[in-house]
Amino acid sequence: MNRRDFGKTLGTLLTASALTGGLEGLAAAPETTRGGRDSPPPTPGTRLRIAMLIYPGMTAQDMIGPQLIFASLGNVDVHLVWKTREAVVSDTGVPILPTATLQECPRDLDILFVGGGLSGTWALMNDLEVLDFLEDRGHRARYVTSVCTGSLVLGAAGLLRGYEAASYWAVRNLLPLLGARPIAERIVEDRNRITGGGVTAGLDFGLYLSARLRGETFARMQQLSIEYDPQPPFQAGSPESAGEAITAQVLEMLAPELEAGRQAALEAGRRLDER
Amino acid sequence: MNRRDFGKTLGTLLTASALTGGLEGLAAAPETTRGGRDSPPPTPGTRLRIAMLIYPGMTAQDMIGPQLIFASLGNVDVHLVWKTREAVVSDTGVPILPTATLQECPRDLDILFVGGGLSGTWALMNDLEVLDFLEDRGHRARYVTSVCTGSLVLGAAGLLRGYEAASYWAVRNLLPLLGARPIAERIVEDRNRITGGGVTAGLDFGLYLSARLRGETFARMQQLSIEYDPQPPFQAGSPESAGEAITAQVLEMLAPELEAGRQAALEAGRRLDER
Repeated sequence: MNRRDFGKTLGTLLTASALTGGLEGLAAAPETTRGGRDSPPPTPGTRLRIAMLIYPGMTAQDMIGPQLIFASLGNVDVHLVWKTREAVVSDTGVPILPTATLQECPRDLDILFVGGGLSGTWALMNDLEVLDFLEDRGHRARYVTSVCTGSLVLGAAGLLRGYEAASYWAVRNLLPLLGARPIAERIVEDRNRITGGGVTAGLDFGLYLSARLRGETFARMQQLSIEYDPQPPFQAGSPESAGEAITAQVLEMLAPELEAGRQAALEAGRRLDER
Repeated sequence: MNRRDFGKTLGTLLTASALTGGLEGLAAAPETTRGGRDSPPPTPGTRLRIAMLIYPGMTAQDMIGPQLIFASLGNVDVHLVWKTREAVVSDTGVPILPTATLQECPRDLDILFVGGGLSGTWALMNDLEVLDFLEDRGHRARYVTSVCTGSLVLGAAGLLRGYEAASYWAVRNLLPLLGARPIAERIVEDRNRITGGGVTAGLDFGLYLSARLRGETFARMQQLSIEYDPQPPFQAGSPESAGEAITAQVLEMLAPELEAGRQAALEAGRRLDER
């Protein structure tokens, strides 16, 4: 068996199982939460085209969680897209090779995805080559999505004007500079925009979107297959649970990054206003 | 700022904060759970050497979650180690570049880590070059660790004989073939072996080990910084929560992989018995 077998095994088998009716006894309609569903879930046989933007300084976790889930949807192409095919190094030093350039990326996508980061992400917010790419693909994509500060990049590309959106807790307040309304939730769906909270929210987001695309039973099978039964040793994943002292400490450490992010959002916002 | 800034910012600043006493008001002793703690946490100024084995067919999520946490410990070298410097492609098609070869990897490590996968992992379990490396580094490492089916690789290297260990839920029963006692918990600590459950358990495992190394307050700051406030849209991350029907369906799909894993464990077990 080759090196892509987990995705292939799981995805192919899940899809095959659904197609042959093996899931019928388990089937349940995907839950609808915030916002409407634009279109019914496709049959599992529909081939999905997914592009995930990767870039220097990204937080790899933001992308890897959803990628695991997307690549296991079955009958799917998942492209890791950047300007060149050279390795991009994550903010914590993980070198990842793109699998397609911006030019090679399919024009019509089922999912366009942007993950987050800090300084690397601020750089993207005023990178016109990247923003033009996102605007072009985003206007045609079935779902326009992000995790963490990736929503600020979508916003900088003009894709969140008039939309509700999630983001990393410490930069959520920057969304209005880009015409979006911040919502303090783990996953925010507004029409075909689905945005997630910070970093690890990508796992929750991925399963949520999987249920949209392949149905809730399929998503539950994925959840078991990745043993997503979180048991954090502490309760400190939000400012509320971490408490004031730890939150203040983290905000103080991040202050220079947050200010740089604010400047990037201001600049991107001015550009959007001039159009 | 360069492309490694998140890790640098967070890690360096957390460490600096701790060193200058900024955390004193928040400090709390790390919790001790299963097993004892071999040594007190080092001062935050102690440089940590960490090696994470990466390989073709690995599940990238297993490694990326802990890597994010390890690389943000501050004053740390995190090596992504494989036989060559050529890209290894994950089971879902993510190409990742090693940062060190087995030969280049430091001899004395604070943490040796192996993540999991399916067919790619079974291949490692009888790859003598890799097993020799793991045995060598593992016998001297301060912590010998894994996530998911990575514990079967540690076991195949003879590093879990007489130890309790965790693993991916569907292969936990193979641990006795390698002399280990399976424990159905998210994180299992037995002397200096710390093993995690399947795939996403790496986030819980990473924070747990961070608290061992840098203290609980530091780990809580990391948890907030990666917004690890899990909110799965479904409850299906364990066989118990997924229910019998979904569990049976996933087990049926995985059956050929699980049988291949069993054969690999039998072969590795025979080799260990002959020594």
